Amino acid sequence: MKKMKAAYIYGPYDLRLKEAEIPEPTADEVLLRVKAVGVCGSDIHFYLTGRSGAFTITQPFVMGHEFAGEIVEVGEDVKDFKKGDRVTVEPGVPCGSCFYCRIGRYNLCENLKFYGAPPYDGGYREYAAVNHRVIFKLPPSLSFEEGALMEPLAVAVQAVKRSGLSAGDSVAVFGSGPIGLLILQAAREAGATLTIATDILDYRLKLAESLGADHVVNVSSEDAVKSIREMTGGRGVDVVFEASGAQAAFKAAFEAVRSGGVIVQVGIFEHEEISFKPVFLTAKELDIKGVFRYANVFPAAISLASQGRVKLKPLITHIFPLEQIKEAFQMIVEKRGNPVKVIIKP
Amino acid sequence: MKKMKAAYIYGPYDLRLKEAEIPEPTADEVLLRVKAVGVCGSDIHFYLTGRSGAFTITQPFVMGHEFAGEIVEVGEDVKDFKKGDRVTVEPGVPCGSCFYCRIGRYNLCENLKFYGAPPYDGGYREYAAVNHRVIFKLPPSLSFEEGALMEPLAVAVQAVKRSGLSAGDSVAVFGSGPIGLLILQAAREAGATLTIATDILDYRLKLAESLGADHVVNVSSEDAVKSIREMTGGRGVDVVFEASGAQAAFKAAFEAVRSGGVIVQVGIFEHEEISFKPVFLTAKELDIKGVFRYANVFPAAISLASQGRVKLKPLITHIFPLEQIKEAFQMIVEKRGNPVKVIIKP
Amino acid sequence: MKKMKAAYIYGPYDLRLKEAEIPEPTADEVLLRVKAVGVCGSDIHFYLTGRSGAFTITQPFVMGHEFAGEIVEVGEDVKDFKKGDRVTVEPGVPCGSCFYCRIGRYNLCENLKFYGAPPYDGGYREYAAVNHRVIFKLPPSLSFEEGALMEPLAVAVQAVKRSGLSAGDSVAVFGSGPIGLLILQAAREAGATLTIATDILDYRLKLAESLGADHVVNVSSEDAVKSIREMTGGRGVDVVFEASGAQAAFKAAFEAVRSGGVIVQVGIFEHEEISFKPVFLTAKELDIKGVFRYANVFPAAISLASQGRVKLKPLITHIFPLEQIKEAFQMIVEKRGNPVKVIIKP
Amino acid sequence: MKKMKAAYIYGPYDLRLKEAEIPEPTADEVLLRVKAVGVCGSDIHFYLTGRSGAFTITQPFVMGHEFAGEIVEVGEDVKDFKKGDRVTVEPGVPCGSCFYCRIGRYNLCENLKFYGAPPYDGGYREYAAVNHRVIFKLPPSLSFEEGALMEPLAVAVQAVKRSGLSAGDSVAVFGSGPIGLLILQAAREAGATLTIATDILDYRLKLAESLGADHVVNVSSEDAVKSIREMTGGRGVDVVFEASGAQAAFKAAFEAVRSGGVIVQVGIFEHEEISFKPVFLTAKELDIKGVFRYANVFPAAISLASQGRVKLKPLITHIFPLEQIKEAFQMIVEKRGNPVKVIIKP
Repeated sequence: MKKMKAAYIYGPYDLRLKEAEIPEPTADEVLLRVKAVGVCGSDIHFYLTGRSGAFTITQPFVMGHEFAGEIVEVGEDVKDFKKGDRVTVEPGVPCGSCFYCRIGRYNLCENLKFYGAPPYDGGYREYAAVNHRVIFKLPPSLSFEEGALMEPLAVAVQAVKRSGLSAGDSVAVFGSGPIGLLILQAAREAGATLTIATDILDYRLKLAESLGADHVVNVSSEDAVKSIREMTGGRGVDVVFEASGAQAAFKAAFEAVRSGGVIVQVGIFEHEEISFKPVFLTAKELDIKGVFRYANVFPAAISLASQGRVKLKPLITHIFPLEQIKEAFQMIVEKRGNPVKVIIKP
Repeated sequence: MKKMKAAYIYGPYDLRLKEAEIPEPTADEVLLRVKAVGVCGSDIHFYLTGRSGAFTITQPFVMGHEFAGEIVEVGEDVKDFKKGDRVTVEPGVPCGSCFYCRIGRYNLCENLKFYGAPPYDGGYREYAAVNHRVIFKLPPSLSFEEGALMEPLAVAVQAVKRSGLSAGDSVAVFGSGPIGLLILQAAREAGATLTIATDILDYRLKLAESLGADHVVNVSSEDAVKSIREMTGGRGVDVVFEASGAQAAFKAAFEAVRSGGVIVQVGIFEHEEISFKPVFLTAKELDIKGVFRYANVFPAAISLASQGRVKLKPLITHIFPLEQIKEAFQMIVEKRGNPVKVIIKP
Repeated sequence: MKKMKAAYIYGPYDLRLKEAEIPEPTADEVLLRVKAVGVCGSDIHFYLTGRSGAFTITQPFVMGHEFAGEIVEVGEDVKDFKKGDRVTVEPGVPCGSCFYCRIGRYNLCENLKFYGAPPYDGGYREYAAVNHRVIFKLPPSLSFEEGALMEPLAVAVQAVKRSGLSAGDSVAVFGSGPIGLLILQAAREAGATLTIATDILDYRLKLAESLGADHVVNVSSEDAVKSIREMTGGRGVDVVFEASGAQAAFKAAFEAVRSGGVIVQVGIFEHEEISFKPVFLTAKELDIKGVFRYANVFPAAISLASQGRVKLKPLITHIFPLEQIKEAFQMIVEKRGNPVKVIIKP
Repeated sequence: MKKMKAAYIYGPYDLRLKEAEIPEPTADEVLLRVKAVGVCGSDIHFYLTGRSGAFTITQPFVMGHEFAGEIVEVGEDVKDFKKGDRVTVEPGVPCGSCFYCRIGRYNLCENLKFYGAPPYDGGYREYAAVNHRVIFKLPPSLSFEEGALMEPLAVAVQAVKRSGLSAGDSVAVFGSGPIGLLILQAAREAGATLTIATDILDYRLKLAESLGADHVVNVSSEDAVKSIREMTGGRGVDVVFEASGAQAAFKAAFEAVRSGGVIVQVGIFEHEEISFKPVFLTAKELDIKGVFRYANVFPAAISLASQGRVKLKPLITHIFPLEQIKEAFQMIVEKRGNPVKVIIKP
């Protein structure tokens, strides 16, 4: 049995680089030489607290659900891929037969197996066996690093799809982290003709501007609601994408959006309970839509990226080898928000 | 100039029955002999606090936006109605040319004139002049009292329309006041095959049952979320209609609804700020939809009522002549919730 | 190996009652004692021509895709059903992983296995092995005969869902055969408040009236378009369900529907090529929607039927034992349209 | 009373340049110095046959519904525009109160006044009085010629909106005339990542390519259906926009679109009656959507054009002064299809 390096999380601040057995792909899996993995905020959450969202570490596992690699072996039933193929991974494997799979919302699958969420191992290792149904070929124009970012881009495309925005709509994106910057671009490519990005860090807002934001607002020094109203002739934007997870942003969304508009909640809130002023929900007859991962959007994400319509490289601020994953995580914790996107290369 | 009786609200607890001039209908108005007016919770709010939602009493005006009557005079441009016609009133007169009117959401009209919201006089008077574009003939099968309830039924139909529910869906209605009881019936008539009603008053729940609720839950003695989960095989309902305006109900909605489901907020919250656990908004990828009055649903409401598919009479628990409007309001304040629907007859 | 009777179709007019082996259920199948099978128009097509839609008889097979029965054996992986359960069958088994399954439109599955379409055996036999994922328990209030009609009712519910109709809409159903009569009822239960049924047979129109049609039109003696316009104040209906497959009906639909309305095509056309006047498609900005079988609607169909909101029994005009299946088919061919729904009982 | 030049159509081939009175704007109109008018196919239809669609010339009138100009006078109630403003015109003035206006589909308004359709005068004249509610300011980046093309661009945006396409979708546009070329661009800007254009003229296909078509197909030498299937991995495109009005194209659309896909009919058919094979409508469960003009999309069209996301200038192949309008029409008739878009400058 051959061996590989893999990073296991055991609990808060307890990330261990270990030797592990290279997995054997089953008949409908491929074995991947993992080439690049994006560090997600939820990975950092596990690292800091031992939990993330509804998940808790109950046994050591390998995090990392944003990853791409090269196929080194294919299971016997796999006909659509071959050794040498460069692929990106949609990390959730739906069951295909529960109520949610049947209605096309397989991201809500009752039996989902998600690579990188406990107890399923993810990408922070040299090799991973993944189901052939959830891998997609990377066009030659995209690097493995960009391939690793297809997962957060899929979240952005899902958010835009859920928003129902159409050509000519105005959009505000609250929070210019990786997801916010991808939503910004995806919304523009879906027809938004006015895009406004907010954040508390000028570094990120500069990036937003260079990626096409028509306006940026630093909410630590500027009243975002007032500015957005001014930019929209007093009416408010058609859609607010809330990608910060900050309570203040959630509250502001109700005032920044126009009557009959849509608030798309993408950010995971830090607080267990949050409050807001409900009067606008009814008086403005709003729609609020949550986003959970993605369904049926990986091909769209890959097309948008490979055509250069959504730019991924400017988001990548740091690259670390797998050996330095602990240093990478520590750096992210220390300068929270400053590094936009960190890539680990096993 | 002929005179009539009219009830003006001057401020908190200051409702005065006065003599007023009978209005002259303009060219596109009809003069109505008001026959029945429903007392809405917002009327009571004005009476108790001098305000309701975004509105404040700045000058005396006549409340009452749920009303029906008989046409006694028609303006010269009115061709579609004649003297003697029995009609119900959709109390909002949209401008027809603002952004919201153009997109078909005229309930959000920027220049809406709403009979019974300040500064426009409503129905608590013997005569009212109303635009012919917002009146609808009452079928012979419907009484004026039922005609007065067409407005709350329109709110219910709007809520059901916004929910997007389709045949076979399961539905929970939180709050079995007049609006809740109408939503319950409208949802069933739109195809819901499992309906669950909640309230804190057994009196109302009995009424809900008699109007077709498959299950009722008294939330003061029973865990609604647990019960609803059991009634739906553990999954939760497809749609929750929150018609109580209670913070606890809003919180419970997120747990009672299935993943990918819809929460329709109809109730006006008593509190300026409310809190909830946001995890389900994203993790269950929910849709939350506010409802503000109604647009394009009065004909549907009238059809459903006149065909007996939605029953209005069982909701009417008290009828007072206009002379006793103060007694009526005082009674409602005292036994809050016990009287379901009170009708004033000018 | 035990034996059973089964009716195989070999080619046009060549239906043979034979002895066959009782199938062995696989691990995820149940063995059904078939109790009732509805004769569908497509079965008659196979019988008359050897083909139906895109399918051709290339080897003998057992038709019959509308069936219900009792479970007599369960495969080892089947946990949700047990011996003795009375069930109805959704005859298509989707693959769960193709593009169409992924987006929730599994009726378009690229690898669909459909019981009763070649080469998969259907219900005209004493026993059938069916996948447990596509069976549904029959409530005690429903007979096996009604259970067999759940499949055509599912088509009707799918048509109504595709139409997007909402409460208060007006509806015309062209063709009052089994599907038309079920659409009529399902549309009403989804909120239609004006329903108009057409046909060329008074027998069927009487049935339509008794099942709740507000108006009926015999198109052989009456101008349906003119009548429908009169019944809708000149505007036309919101939705036309074309369930006849007649070219004249398709043409009329464009005139009978209001501007911005919806035509739902359910009927299979007899002619390979049909013509129509396209001016209304654009000038009235219409939506035309095809319906192919159903997805995710069996639970809705069962609820509507078991609550008595859709009546199935009045549609059943003849019942034959399996031994007389040839006589049954011959009778249907002879008095085409007169028998509404024929049930075969193996 | 001052005079101006105006081109009146009297009947087939009878277009007369005459002197007419400059109109007086009413209180809610502005007087426009018309600067550019696009020649639409329907203008040519009137010129050739005396009719177009549902309209017939019953009295002489001024055609031209694609126009832009400069405001030289404003009516007394007009507050949102001033002398000197450069504007483009949405030529339909809806009533604001009929059924269709109420539901937001004012393009279907029962009382629409449409500049350039009989009996309302359009843009082929030096001055036109137009309602201030249907004019839009031209950004400095757009010329009057481009302003005149905002109307056909609005048709394209309406078509894209009706299609419901989302990011990542594949699209085929049948017919690369002005509307087709605008749909092509608008679809891409709404998120289409694969665009295929067809035509019978290489000249137009070259233009399509230069405007961003990923593939072009000359249907006179190539099997479009076969090619489109190959370009989409055998599945067919998500959306076909039929912008040619050719029967063969309509037929091909049913084969080129994927199951569950959408055909948007924009082209006006030359033939009163057309035929097609209906099997795919049901077997592929298709949606067919007609497009009639536009509603609520002019702002989107202006934004897309002014941001350079949709290019208009390459479509303009000829410019004529108003004095030569007859020569212009004659040229278009002679080399049908070769000139893409002709502009008349009064």
